[in-house]
Amino acid sequence: MGGVKKIAILGSTGSIGQQTLDVIRASPNELQVVALTGGKNFNLLEGQISEFQPRMFSSSVKPDFSYGGEFLSTEEIASHPEVDFVIVATSGKAGLSPTLAALKAGKIVALASKEVMVMAGEIVLREATIHQAQIIPVDSEHSAIWQCLQGEENKPQRLFLTASGGPFYHYSQSQLSESTPKQALNHPTWKMGRKVTIDSATLMNKGLEVIEAHWLFSFPFDSIEILIHPQSIVHSIVEFTDGSLKAQLSWPDMRLPIQYALSYPQRWLNPELPRLDWNRIQELNFEPVDYDKFPCLKLAVDAGKLGGTYPAVLCAADEVAVGLFLDHRISFTDIARVVQKTLEQHRNIARPSLEEILAADTWARECATNWRPR
Amino acid sequence: MGGVKKIAILGSTGSIGQQTLDVIRASPNELQVVALTGGKNFNLLEGQISEFQPRMFSSSVKPDFSYGGEFLSTEEIASHPEVDFVIVATSGKAGLSPTLAALKAGKIVALASKEVMVMAGEIVLREATIHQAQIIPVDSEHSAIWQCLQGEENKPQRLFLTASGGPFYHYSQSQLSESTPKQALNHPTWKMGRKVTIDSATLMNKGLEVIEAHWLFSFPFDSIEILIHPQSIVHSIVEFTDGSLKAQLSWPDMRLPIQYALSYPQRWLNPELPRLDWNRIQELNFEPVDYDKFPCLKLAVDAGKLGGTYPAVLCAADEVAVGLFLDHRISFTDIARVVQKTLEQHRNIARPSLEEILAADTWARECATNWRPR
Repeated sequence: MGGVKKIAILGSTGSIGQQTLDVIRASPNELQVVALTGGKNFNLLEGQISEFQPRMFSSSVKPDFSYGGEFLSTEEIASHPEVDFVIVATSGKAGLSPTLAALKAGKIVALASKEVMVMAGEIVLREATIHQAQIIPVDSEHSAIWQCLQGEENKPQRLFLTASGGPFYHYSQSQLSESTPKQALNHPTWKMGRKVTIDSATLMNKGLEVIEAHWLFSFPFDSIEILIHPQSIVHSIVEFTDGSLKAQLSWPDMRLPIQYALSYPQRWLNPELPRLDWNRIQELNFEPVDYDKFPCLKLAVDAGKLGGTYPAVLCAADEVAVGLFLDHRISFTDIARVVQKTLEQHRNIARPSLEEILAADTWARECATNWRPR
Repeated sequence: MGGVKKIAILGSTGSIGQQTLDVIRASPNELQVVALTGGKNFNLLEGQISEFQPRMFSSSVKPDFSYGGEFLSTEEIASHPEVDFVIVATSGKAGLSPTLAALKAGKIVALASKEVMVMAGEIVLREATIHQAQIIPVDSEHSAIWQCLQGEENKPQRLFLTASGGPFYHYSQSQLSESTPKQALNHPTWKMGRKVTIDSATLMNKGLEVIEAHWLFSFPFDSIEILIHPQSIVHSIVEFTDGSLKAQLSWPDMRLPIQYALSYPQRWLNPELPRLDWNRIQELNFEPVDYDKFPCLKLAVDAGKLGGTYPAVLCAADEVAVGLFLDHRISFTDIARVVQKTLEQHRNIARPSLEEILAADTWARECATNWRPR
């Protein structure tokens, strides 16, 4: 692809959105922001707009300040002829409809929102195939696998997603039930948004990543394994049929996989990005994950295997449960209970339409919100 | 490349040669042995010939048994029209002339002999370029780098060769000077031939690998680093310009890189090859190498940087010194002294011809043989 890439960032005010703008600032000759969309943090969005002067923008409510750019819906932006490359960095289900719009318009989609693939992997892949649109992963684990697969002609044997284990990996059950939002938000290695940080502490996040990897790499669930790796240096590992493995490593910093998605298939020098210092590492540890200790992980993988509307229900119930936990209304260990109860009450629809997925999401939110601890 | 690959193995009776035959036994539909060459172990060669019935063969002396295959020189075999693929698994300078013959005939050359590149890297690369012949590395470290570079469009930033450190990495200087051949031959992770096992204990082997990597990947010496990694699971690491790194891992077993060289660019399922078991690993350690403790490493890298005939002198003097040590005629720490004295007495020839390289080899052997401990 020659010339400047014209980028639309959906969710530019979130953690990934802001780091994407950092990466773009470092490569102004290669990347141009043509669209920004934000949600409620309107002050931040206004600052970004004033800096990057995008051709178009979107937000949850139309602002009342005067500015030359065009106010459009996220779907209009994602499919706009002046956009080459759409970064989906929204949270929850917000990315679903614009991702499909972008794929239908044949855009390159860099996917930083897990929920899009988890909720509607089959539909998303179908649209990408029909319209020959490329999906590039941004999550550090999936970017690692994507990087390790470059130049390989044969399908791998196994994928190992690494997980730091979060702040509570060595906690007892009673310690877990007493953990506070403040403790759970203190992630040992990664700086991330609040929702994904809590999901990292429950290991729900890793379960969602397993489902995402299943769809992104067309890979069976039983060949996707999880390794607890507390240092978050090895971002994932691919095992090939001959017994050889490749791992991708870096300092844990989301700007690296974001830039790789933007520079792919090239790599760009960026002095802002951190470099591994082997004098400071010395030891990398790995251990197979304990599924029993972190029920959210098993719930997620099981929902992924069952398919249909279950993964959408999982996502919605988890979002509600994490909100209840952050509001101090349920305990840390209740998060899994809310999700499990909601899944148990759900009547699955196999091979659902987009409307059925969104209806399952609405149903699950209501069901989870009404859950009360025994 | 369609159909069966027709393989010539130069040095089939050595450790790499025998393991190459193991790999070929596992993929009889893809690989066919058309030529075997051996040195002094004539019984073993005869057994291999009787099993594989190669179209041609070679050995140090012509055998007196009747057999339908043709007896040819290694150069004739390496350039023979019926050979597609030449594995150079000879030791010392023996591989040099047949490697050049194979490249001139446009063969694919899988290089398991470090000395070929160390002694004559510039000449070897020139012939490969002129005749558009491909060189595939077989050494585990270089195979790892080669694997990590697949699908990458940009030149990497740094190469990290890993080193187990050998059996003596944590020995004191006085312990080192008293080390016996028996101790030095007891390598902690790899099963290899005697010469390369001693070279691993002195770290000369790693120095030769740095020179080989310099030529194979056209990479500056100052960007090739060494990491001590006692488990020998990570076989080398490549750092790219964006701060991302790729590592290649496997159980330490030379059949893996041998098979990759033969199957490249594909990978083949081979149930005989070991698989990593993460329940048995748990920890991978890394530390920057201590150049002062292992003078052979620094001698090698310095000889590589000086270039000319120095690397050939280094190889020859080391081969003699290792022989003297194995014969209990000099101490372990004398190996570096023999090599250093020989290098100090050498008058370098810049951009040497093949004849000048071979003359430097002869001179260095004589010089090293005559060295006596103070």
